[in-house]
Formats: sequence, C-alpha cells, structure tokens
Amino acid sequence: MKIAMLGLGKMGGNMAARLIRNGVSVVGYDNNQTVVNQLEETENLIPASSVKDALSKLDEQKIVWMMLPAGEITENQIHELVPLLNKGDVIIDGGNSNFKRSVKMGAMLEENGIGFMDCGTSGGVWGLDNGYCLMVGANDEVAKVVEPALRALAVTPQNGWLHVGPVGSGHFTKMIHNGIEYGMMESFAEGLELLKGREEFKIDVAQVTELWRHGSVVRSWLLDLTAEALKNDPTLDDIAPFVPDSGEGRWTVVESIEQGIPTPVLTLALQVRFRSQEKQKGYGYKLLSTMRNAFGGHVMKKRG
Amino acid sequence: MKIAMLGLGKMGGNMAARLIRNGVSVVGYDNNQTVVNQLEETENLIPASSVKDALSKLDEQKIVWMMLPAGEITENQIHELVPLLNKGDVIIDGGNSNFKRSVKMGAMLEENGIGFMDCGTSGGVWGLDNGYCLMVGANDEVAKVVEPALRALAVTPQNGWLHVGPVGSGHFTKMIHNGIEYGMMESFAEGLELLKGREEFKIDVAQVTELWRHGSVVRSWLLDLTAEALKNDPTLDDIAPFVPDSGEGRWTVVESIEQGIPTPVLTLALQVRFRSQEKQKGYGYKLLSTMRNAFGGHVMKKRG
Amino acid sequence: MKIAMLGLGKMGGNMAARLIRNGVSVVGYDNNQTVVNQLEETENLIPASSVKDALSKLDEQKIVWMMLPAGEITENQIHELVPLLNKGDVIIDGGNSNFKRSVKMGAMLEENGIGFMDCGTSGGVWGLDNGYCLMVGANDEVAKVVEPALRALAVTPQNGWLHVGPVGSGHFTKMIHNGIEYGMMESFAEGLELLKGREEFKIDVAQVTELWRHGSVVRSWLLDLTAEALKNDPTLDDIAPFVPDSGEGRWTVVESIEQGIPTPVLTLALQVRFRSQEKQKGYGYKLLSTMRNAFGGHVMKKRG
Amino acid sequence: MKIAMLGLGKMGGNMAARLIRNGVSVVGYDNNQTVVNQLEETENLIPASSVKDALSKLDEQKIVWMMLPAGEITENQIHELVPLLNKGDVIIDGGNSNFKRSVKMGAMLEENGIGFMDCGTSGGVWGLDNGYCLMVGANDEVAKVVEPALRALAVTPQNGWLHVGPVGSGHFTKMIHNGIEYGMMESFAEGLELLKGREEFKIDVAQVTELWRHGSVVRSWLLDLTAEALKNDPTLDDIAPFVPDSGEGRWTVVESIEQGIPTPVLTLALQVRFRSQEKQKGYGYKLLSTMRNAFGGHVMKKRG
Repeated sequence: MKIAMLGLGKMGGNMAARLIRNGVSVVGYDNNQTVVNQLEETENLIPASSVKDALSKLDEQKIVWMMLPAGEITENQIHELVPLLNKGDVIIDGGNSNFKRSVKMGAMLEENGIGFMDCGTSGGVWGLDNGYCLMVGANDEVAKVVEPALRALAVTPQNGWLHVGPVGSGHFTKMIHNGIEYGMMESFAEGLELLKGREEFKIDVAQVTELWRHGSVVRSWLLDLTAEALKNDPTLDDIAPFVPDSGEGRWTVVESIEQGIPTPVLTLALQVRFRSQEKQKGYGYKLLSTMRNAFGGHVMKKRG
Repeated sequence: MKIAMLGLGKMGGNMAARLIRNGVSVVGYDNNQTVVNQLEETENLIPASSVKDALSKLDEQKIVWMMLPAGEITENQIHELVPLLNKGDVIIDGGNSNFKRSVKMGAMLEENGIGFMDCGTSGGVWGLDNGYCLMVGANDEVAKVVEPALRALAVTPQNGWLHVGPVGSGHFTKMIHNGIEYGMMESFAEGLELLKGREEFKIDVAQVTELWRHGSVVRSWLLDLTAEALKNDPTLDDIAPFVPDSGEGRWTVVESIEQGIPTPVLTLALQVRFRSQEKQKGYGYKLLSTMRNAFGGHVMKKRG
Repeated sequence: MKIAMLGLGKMGGNMAARLIRNGVSVVGYDNNQTVVNQLEETENLIPASSVKDALSKLDEQKIVWMMLPAGEITENQIHELVPLLNKGDVIIDGGNSNFKRSVKMGAMLEENGIGFMDCGTSGGVWGLDNGYCLMVGANDEVAKVVEPALRALAVTPQNGWLHVGPVGSGHFTKMIHNGIEYGMMESFAEGLELLKGREEFKIDVAQVTELWRHGSVVRSWLLDLTAEALKNDPTLDDIAPFVPDSGEGRWTVVESIEQGIPTPVLTLALQVRFRSQEKQKGYGYKLLSTMRNAFGGHVMKKRG
Repeated sequence: MKIAMLGLGKMGGNMAARLIRNGVSVVGYDNNQTVVNQLEETENLIPASSVKDALSKLDEQKIVWMMLPAGEITENQIHELVPLLNKGDVIIDGGNSNFKRSVKMGAMLEENGIGFMDCGTSGGVWGLDNGYCLMVGANDEVAKVVEPALRALAVTPQNGWLHVGPVGSGHFTKMIHNGIEYGMMESFAEGLELLKGREEFKIDVAQVTELWRHGSVVRSWLLDLTAEALKNDPTLDDIAPFVPDSGEGRWTVVESIEQGIPTPVLTLALQVRFRSQEKQKGYGYKLLSTMRNAFGGHVMKKRG
C-alpha cells in the first residue's frame, strides 16, 4: 500500500513514520521541506516537493491522508485536491475538524466521485511508539481501501481503530472523546489542588499520584502522565496558570446545547479553562464586589 | 416597649435608630463608646457603659437584641447573659449565625428558662430608611413578646417580618435567602460580562442595566443597585477582581450536600468567588497545562 | 404615526393594543382573522386581510412591525416584504430572533434600501398594562423613525426603551437578558427546594416568598410572580416537573463558548432544564450505576 | 506476622484471603459466623467466635484491622477494643471513615497508648486478585509495625501502598480519590450519553468504549470496566436510572467549601447523583414551570 501524507508536523510526521515502519509506503509533503528531508533520511519517506509532486508518486488509486490544522487550511487543501484527483480516489482528514464540516466535505467530494474518510486520531506524541486510537467515519468501500493504513497506525492491527459509522461519525466520536478528556483532566486537577490544600498533612502530591497508579479506581493514562510529570517537577512553580482550549472541547458543549442533553461536568471543565484565560480581566468579579458594597456597605478591595 | 441592643455597628446602630424612630425605647451598648454617644445625641438612644448597665436600665422582663459578629463572639455573649437574666427574659440573635448553632443555643437557654429568637435580618445599609426584612425563628410566646420590635424594624408594621417557625428556622431561612442572593448576583455578573464581550456592538453596560430596571423580567433590587453603581463608575477599573464570601453562602451548599438536594447554580455562584480568591495560586491550572504538554506535546506557557 | 403589526398573538396583540391606546394608529394582520376582528372591536385596530392589504393602508413611508415566531417564519416574512416595500421603508423584528440572523437580515435589507430594526422585547403578558422593556438595534435614522412607537410601547415614554447600538445589538441584549433570567429563576428554584427540604421546620414556602418581597436583597419581579403563584397554588402538586427552554437561553451559552467567557451559572440553569426533559431517559445515570457495580460490586437498582 | 480482621464482608473477607495467601496469619471475626467458617475452610483463616476470642489468638503485640461500615459501628468497635488492648497494640481502620473522625479516634487512642492507622482502601471487588491501593495515615512507628500487612495487600510489595502522612491523611487521601472517581465517572457518563444522542450516526457505544481502551487519551480502568459492562449489556434497559452516593463524595465537596477551593466538576458530579435520586420530586422544576407561566403565559405541562 502507498499513501500520500500531507502535513508532517508533530502528528503527521510521527504517523508517516509509524506507517512506514509497519510496511506502508508513504509519500510525504510539508510546507517545511526540512522535515520532509529529515523523514526521508530517518524513515525512508518518499519525499515530495509539492502536493502535485506527491500525487504523481502515488499508484493509480490515489490515497491522500491530511494531517493539517483544522478549519480553513484543511478545507482549502481539500478544494485544491479535487481537480487533481480521479473518481475512486480517497481523501482522509485525520485532523481535529468539526464533524459538521466533515459531513459537508464528504458530500461535496461524493458529488465529485471522490471517497472521503474523517478519522479522529488520539494518542498524541506517544502514538509513534504505542500506536494510535483511530475513530473512523466513512462508507464501507472507502473504509476497506484505507484499512491497511489503519491497521498500521493503530495500537495493534486489531485494536485501536474502529469504523464507527458514516462520514462525520469519526470526527464526532473524537470530539466526544476530547470532551471526556477535559472532564477527566479537570477531575484530577481539582482533586489534587484540594489534596494539597490541607497543609497540616504535608502531602506529597507526586507520591500520591504515583501510588494511585497501582490498584486504585482512578488509575488511567492521564494519571500515569501526571505522576511522571510531577516526579520531574514536583512544584510546577515555573508553569503559568494558563490553560488553552481548542475546538473539540467547545464543540462538545455546543453539541450538548443543540441536543438538549445536560453535560455539566464537561461544560464546567471547559469553562474553567476560560477562567484561566480571563479575557474580561475580572469584570464579573468586579461587578460582584461592587454589588456587595452597594447593598451591604462591604468594603471593596481596590487594585494594588 | 424597651429593649437593649448589644452591638451598634453598621447593622446594629441603624436598627437601634429605626426602633427608636418607630417608638421603641432602646438601651444601647457597644465596645466602642463613641458610637454609643453618637446615637445618644442623634437618636435619643439610652446609653449603657456595660452589658450589666444596659440590663439594669430595662424593664422587669428584659429583652436583649444582639447584633454581633456570628460565631464565638455571639455565643460568648449569650453565655455571659445567662446568669444575668431571669426566667421569662428573652434574647434575640439578629446576626448571621449558623442555624444549627442557633438551635443549640435555643435549647440551652430554654433549659435556663430564657426565651430565644433567631432573627435573620436582610436589608443591609438601606434598612434604616426602607425597613428590614426579618425572618424569625421562635416559639409563639417569645414571638409575641418581640412582635412590637419586629413591627418597628420591618418595612411596614405588616410587611417585612414573618414568624417562620421554631427556633433555628429564622437563621435557616436567612441562609437560604443569601444562597439565592449569591445566585442572582452571579447571574448578573456573568450576563453583563458577556454583554461587554462582543466589542462590535460597543454596548454601554450602565445604560442597559438602567434600561432593564423598567419593564424587564430581570428587574430587581440588585439590578437597581447595579445600575446606580455603574452610573457612578462605568468602568470599575479601580476595583480589584476579588470577591469575599461569608458563612451563609457556604452553609447553603453544605446544606444541599447534607440534604442530598442538587443546587448547581447556588454552588457555582459560591465557587466562582473562591476562584477570585485563588488560594492555591493556580495550581490546578498548572496541572492541566502540564497534562496537555505530557500527552500532546502542547507548549506550556511559562511564568513571565 | 401609523404602523403595521404582523402577528397578533399573545405578544403582538397586546403590543398593538398598547400602541393604539397611546396614540399610534395600527393596521393589524394575522393568519387568524378572528383575532384581527377582536382587536378591531375592542381596540380600534385597522384590520387587514393580507400583508399586502396591510401595507396598502399605511402612509407613504411604510413601517412594519413583525411579532412572529423567530426563525424561518420571521425570515420568510421579511423576504416576502422586500419586493412590496420601497426605499426608506422600515421593518422591525420584535421577536426572539438570533442576533446573528438579525445582522444578516439587516445587511440584506440595507442592500435593498430598506431600514431594519431588531427589537428585543421583554415584559411578557404584563406588558399591555405595565409597558414593555425594549432593546433596540438600528442605525440612527431608523431609530428616529420608530421612536414614537417605542415611546408608546415602553413603560413610560422615557423609560423602558434604549437604542443600544447597531443592528443586531437589540436581539443580542435581549438574549443576554434571557440568559440572566434563566439564572435568576434557577436561583429561586434551588433555594426554595432547599427551604422546603428541612422538614422539622415545616416552612411555608409561599409565606416566605411573600415576606422576601419586602425589604430583602432578593426582592424582584420574579419573586413577586412566584409569591403570587404560590399563594394560589401552595403545593404545585398538579404541575408536571418539566421545564421547556427556548432559543435565547441556548444562544447565551453558545455565545459564552464562542467568546471564551465562563458562564457557569447561566449554563447550569439551562442544563437543569435539559435534565427535566430527560431526552436520553436516564442513560447517563444507568451508566454510573453500572460502573459502581462493576468496580465495587454495589447492587444496582433495577427498573420496577 | 499475625493480625485480627474484624468484619469479613465483601471487602474484609477478600482482604483476609489476600493476606493469608501472601503469608500473613489472620484471625477473623464477623457477626455472621457462616462467612468465618467459609474463610476457615477455603483460606485457612483462624476462626474467632468473638472479638475477645480473636484478640486471645493474637501474639503479644496485638494488631487489629477493622473493615466495618464507617461511622458509629466503626467507632463503637474502637471504643470496645480500648480496654481489651495494651500499650503498643495497634488498631487499623481500613473503612471509609471521615478523616476528621479518624484524627479524633487517633488522638483518643494515643492517650491510651494504643497505636492507630487510618488506611484508605481502593480496589473494590477486584482487590483480591489484583491487589489493593492503600493510603496510609499513621506515625512512623505504627507504619513500621503494619508494613508487612500492607505489602501483602498491595498490588505488589513495593507498589500500591504509601505512608502518606500522620493519622487522618490516609482517609483524607482516600476521600479525595473518591471525589476524583466521581468526576471521572460522570465525565464518561455525560460523554457517552451525548455520543448516543446523534441518532443519524447510529453509534455502537459498546464498541466505541472498547476502541478507546487502546491508545486513546481517556484509557483508564473505569473505561475498561465500562466497556466490559456494555459488552454484556449493550442497552442497560433494565437498570434503574438511580445512582446512590456515599460519604466520600459528599465530604470532598464539604472540604472544598471549608478550604475555599473551587471544585466545580467534583461538585456537579455529586449533585448529578442527587438529581437521579430526586428527593423533592421535581419541586424545583415545578417552580420554574410556574414562573414561566406567570410572566410569559407559557402553558404549563400538567401531570399525566
């Protein structure tokens, strides 16, 4: 099997390498030719100097896997590919695209006779060695075509990939996955903050997270990573108290609103990140302080 | 009617004045003799130089109203009063005491033949002119004895006081009142922060709050105060984004936990204030940032 | 001044009546001719048998106020009006439309030389007698044209209407208003449920809500309505525990997600309503019960 | 090493068995003599017919491990043991006691010269085979005495137990552990409910949970159990939508309130369970429905 990988960043580069190591030929292209050359040297990637060049090096049925930033960049790439592909060719979007956009892209491509797969990809920087978890949306025909690549990328050929359903269902499932991830992360963050709070016990948070990895109900990969990180940096003193968020967490909450299904924990986990970003610079807090002063004469703290 | 007022601070001083203006004789005592003297001059308060002195100036059935900081100070005062009072005398605790403590105090006083009333008092610094809202816990006999004072303090003799139920129910009702207050305040704070967020509309928040006072569904006293405050200080630039909280909001949430009744909004309204206080200096945020880095290689923001 | 009112339902009918009572001539049309005829009889509405007929009865500069269900019906009406109107005419959307749609409608109408105003309308069934609270988005010219109608509808000619900003800002402000409304309603609902929970106090919830109307910090129009409703139906036994929600509350949360501004209380207030609707029939609860069984051997409750 | 195990229920029985299998002699007592006899037969438990009998079969330094329901039963057992033990003997409370009570028990026992260990125990019904995760609060001397038993119970002699800190810190750490567990469980429950909600994708929830076990960020023991449970019962149709909660989750939230540290996710995870229990039978929902009717004339759903 031979595929093109467009985008060889943190995710795409590792995935190209894992594909090659597991017997798939990969033609790779990236804006940054340096990473193309590196992967050529270290992993036997077939280098391409442009998207067209990449396509020219594929077999007759062209299979193009994109690992690009979600949104405009991904969609522009798809539109650029359409006139360059033939009926029966296949595009895979492995990025974190919004599932509704994927449904639209899929329909547009279908009209052009081109197959489409939306593939939610979990595993982060660890995927190269451990394998990925792949949530696949596609019709049966497309799924069959791409299956060898899925088996090469996944944790094992059997485990770590699933043809979830039609186009859109792959990115939808990944979106939910990330929503749950937000909730789990926040659960640990809150619990450990509280654990640290009772000073008379002088609890070593790093040791407790290591302990919980063995036999507790909360054992999990996120806990493994947390324990490892705290072993290396027990105080986190130099980390800024600032947590970015990405599309997936937000879309999960919007989905909950659209479906009318309550997700208090997933929502709060997202909004806690907003709080760390404090876009309105505490305007809400100031209003509360002002109201307290207005009805109760409570003294307001002034800015230092 | 003649009563003693112990504690002549922001609340007690105003209440003494309102009682006197509405025909109740008030013997007043405070640690700070200056406020005693002031109220003697301006409001015809009968001054007392000590608790004993205050009691000596009362009629045979002594009625003692305490407006002291809740907790130890209030309870110590009650214990100090017990040997100085006789069967049939009455103590009123008008402060923000925990209702469970009030139930205990009431039982202890009953054993000593002394009547007890827990009186939740709302109205803040505006009570002197507008009258107070009084939530009363007591047995019928005690309620009858204190009624003239309640009628003098309330918004009108008929409205603004209620004998809610037995001892404890007054402070319990006040606790719930404050829980609701937290939720309403936070509702406004969140909404107005969001209103300000969409910059293309350049919305004048002060004008909108003033608008809503007239005919909208959210019109309320808290909105009146907010509109007034924003008229005087439209930017709140000099206010620190820091919101204290007091016992009442916390007890409401503990009550919800004990009763097993969900109060997500009241709870979050409290925890938002905790967030503004940031006791753990963003340790939770740092953990989240660390986890993101650990699984996804996302760059962490470092402290500036 | 003369305007057409399209849609004479619960809101539109009352607004037509208030306009007429305050000196504005109103040509009214509704699918349901019965309500047209009733308003003709009781309020001197000028009846129209069709939209075209309504327009033909206006002055040269036509002013058309729509009170229609938000969404497709409103937008279809706008599109139907465009060819029937001339440059300089004005359409007002007084319904609960999404502010982003209003911005689009406004731009489309501007291209056709037609003025547009989005007017968020609060006041409910009480507006006829008390007057409305009107949040207006429009350019200055349009606002000037419609001002006499706004003055007639508002609580007083001066209070209860505000030209908030450009097109879109009216419905945006109304959306935030309703978000706050959800938070306030939920604050009361949670507090009163908790108040009722402590059975030993046998608290009469209806009496307490009436009490709080006088002098308390939580006094508000929503409390007035709640106290009145509980006076008439103290137990609420016959009401189903089911709370619908409409677009406004949902859009507020989506706005918070898009802006990245945390609104935990407004969000939870919405999601509590979702909970009452229980679309997934407790699937989440069942999962929790199943997990508890799986790790701890806790017995699961089976369906009765 | 020889210890007494008081309480041979689901947890205590398994722990006795694991101790014996790993070389610790265990004298066992339970109200229910049948379980004592069973463990005698199957695991070589040394049977005891009473607490006194159990103590008489121990070595000179008596070590007594209690696995009893937290609260009164555990505390009564401790008080019963005091006069039966000598200086230097040790009591271990392995149940889910409140850490504040454990601090008190420890202080009382110390006055009597008796050592105390509070041991938070995680691992559920799987602990017998997989080993337990033990969070230990004790002074160094006591920890040293009990260490062989901890090594026998834990996942491995080195992993799965930790001397966290002084008396109280063991149960405190277990409390936080369970708080996090609530948050993680609810994260999965919400995400899976949402996954199921979009019907056009016809997603097989059981398959997705199995998928995520391999390579995803949310892989965890709770996910393993969930996938296994859904494999056996894909619909959960017969499970009642009712989720009990125990002391630990509630104490975690109370701790957050006492410390003033926000834990929105842990709190909501608990309150969702309250919601499933619906103690007030939807009174809050009914109030919301009533308010909507009162201001907007919205029709209320009546009970069927």
